[in-house]
Amino acid sequence: MIRLAVDGMGGDNAPAEIVKGTLMALEKFDNIEITLFGDKEKMAPYLKAHPRLEVVHTPYFLEMGEKDPIKQYRTHKEASMFMAMQHVKDGKAEAVVSAGPTQALVVGGHFIIRRMPAMKRVAICPVIPSYDGRGRLLLDSGANVEFKPEHLLDFAVYATIMAEKVLKRDKPTLGLINIGTEDGKGRDFDKETFALLKASSDVNFVGNIEPKEVFTTEADILLSDGFTANIVMKTMEGTAKGMGMLLKREIKATFLSKIGALFMKKALYKFKKSLDASEIGGALIMGLDGVVIKAQGASQAYGFYNGIRQAKEMVEANVISLVSEVLSKKEVSEE
Amino acid sequence: MIRLAVDGMGGDNAPAEIVKGTLMALEKFDNIEITLFGDKEKMAPYLKAHPRLEVVHTPYFLEMGEKDPIKQYRTHKEASMFMAMQHVKDGKAEAVVSAGPTQALVVGGHFIIRRMPAMKRVAICPVIPSYDGRGRLLLDSGANVEFKPEHLLDFAVYATIMAEKVLKRDKPTLGLINIGTEDGKGRDFDKETFALLKASSDVNFVGNIEPKEVFTTEADILLSDGFTANIVMKTMEGTAKGMGMLLKREIKATFLSKIGALFMKKALYKFKKSLDASEIGGALIMGLDGVVIKAQGASQAYGFYNGIRQAKEMVEANVISLVSEVLSKKEVSEE
Repeated sequence: MIRLAVDGMGGDNAPAEIVKGTLMALEKFDNIEITLFGDKEKMAPYLKAHPRLEVVHTPYFLEMGEKDPIKQYRTHKEASMFMAMQHVKDGKAEAVVSAGPTQALVVGGHFIIRRMPAMKRVAICPVIPSYDGRGRLLLDSGANVEFKPEHLLDFAVYATIMAEKVLKRDKPTLGLINIGTEDGKGRDFDKETFALLKASSDVNFVGNIEPKEVFTTEADILLSDGFTANIVMKTMEGTAKGMGMLLKREIKATFLSKIGALFMKKALYKFKKSLDASEIGGALIMGLDGVVIKAQGASQAYGFYNGIRQAKEMVEANVISLVSEVLSKKEVSEE
Repeated sequence: MIRLAVDGMGGDNAPAEIVKGTLMALEKFDNIEITLFGDKEKMAPYLKAHPRLEVVHTPYFLEMGEKDPIKQYRTHKEASMFMAMQHVKDGKAEAVVSAGPTQALVVGGHFIIRRMPAMKRVAICPVIPSYDGRGRLLLDSGANVEFKPEHLLDFAVYATIMAEKVLKRDKPTLGLINIGTEDGKGRDFDKETFALLKASSDVNFVGNIEPKEVFTTEADILLSDGFTANIVMKTMEGTAKGMGMLLKREIKATFLSKIGALFMKKALYKFKKSLDASEIGGALIMGLDGVVIKAQGASQAYGFYNGIRQAKEMVEANVISLVSEVLSKKEVSEE
């Protein structure tokens, strides 16, 4: 039985959609048990009793706009998110799923669950939409502002195992985000990272990838530092949002195009859905000694359910142990 | 009379569309004279005599995929692009327009036209599409891989004057591209740049801007280092291209949606046009002692014409002198 801790109060649509997504997952998967942390009174209207569901009341939760998660951690350890993490630390669950603020998950992960001994840094690793609908891993999407090429190599190893086991890719490939495709492009940081990745036998490195291929590249994993990959993620988001607004504006501009849009309703719906990351899963907070999945802040029930599914698959495939194994072998061979 | 040097052989659609765009500009603007550099035989089918057009034959031109512009500069000074630049250096024209490879324009700019004495670096400054259709300046979009915050301040001053004089913005505003909107976000580089911009009286700094607002921000100018802004530009391009492909795929998927698309033809055309940077203008190679405009590589006649218009407006508004003036005052006050 896989034991999951769920933060019932995180995200824009908590607790309603979170509770619904949790019940959906319990119905779908026979091999999971869930402990749900949150305000019992607020969750009650959406809750149903389930033999594999336990509910723990927490008096406090983090707001989505939270700017100072370290202070929150110091003053509010009874917050639903932190309580769920403590559950993993206490060995009572293997994974946490929350739609709460990402940086709070990174902070809680550091202080409560703590890093895997084999990893020196923690990264944020979302699944981003792609033209083929299978998704891509993009990391570090914002946990670190400055770090070293060797940290990126650790992330690359982890992401490779995750892409294989969870996204079910056969020999997943990995590219370095850069301003040109030729070898030797970029900052000193990128050149050093390039050399490390090329020399590693634990990853299938395909070289530099320009973000004009961000949506269409064959590579399963896109890698860069936590500043750059965050910029890529947010630029994708901003461009997609802006283009959606533009399209809506043009459709509304004339009667004819409004009629046309009726004919195209299904196509436009599928178009929108293809760009919806919650269809694929949440973001992994990578490098912790436990699985921590950040579901999208705007998660609806189905999106949150997908975050739970992803957590379950990470645990089932034993990803953390596999990563530890590969990374410790690597350390030995380096000595 | 404003004198312009045009590279007739640069870009994917040279020389046909370049020559057409050049003739279009001559017809539209009474106050320009153009010297067109290129292969006379190849240009002949599209050329028409014009009292303000002179054609100079050049035996060589740069391919669009050119990876080693420094070598090209050393071995092929007779290339159409470099000849056009030499024309400016010789005082026979005030501006160059080319749709050839960007990095070759940066190299040629450095070696032939040379930097403005007041600027320590050269930047690439394109006009990117925006929701309101007015465009935004995004820089440095790729001339520098690593440089210092004070160089970014010089670019900020230049871009402010350009936005005012050429994009006709009243008190143009400027934001720093960053991973969060709060003060103190980002790398050390970003924090130092933030402080410099905030202290400057020559720019209207509005603080950090996350690229999820890249398409909708009110700021007229988006600023970052040459690695990051290049990544933003290419991610926008990749996302827009990918979304366009997705939309096309969904439209083609069913008969009903194909019918719908017929009704929406005009709306879809306007949608596409809103994303087309060539509607607004080319990219300025900023910091040189002459105006150098890089028109889009895929320029059609109208896009190239817009690059010429932009060059003309830069010269008319005397942008380079204005920038020199502000920057030298700044240096004096710093001493």
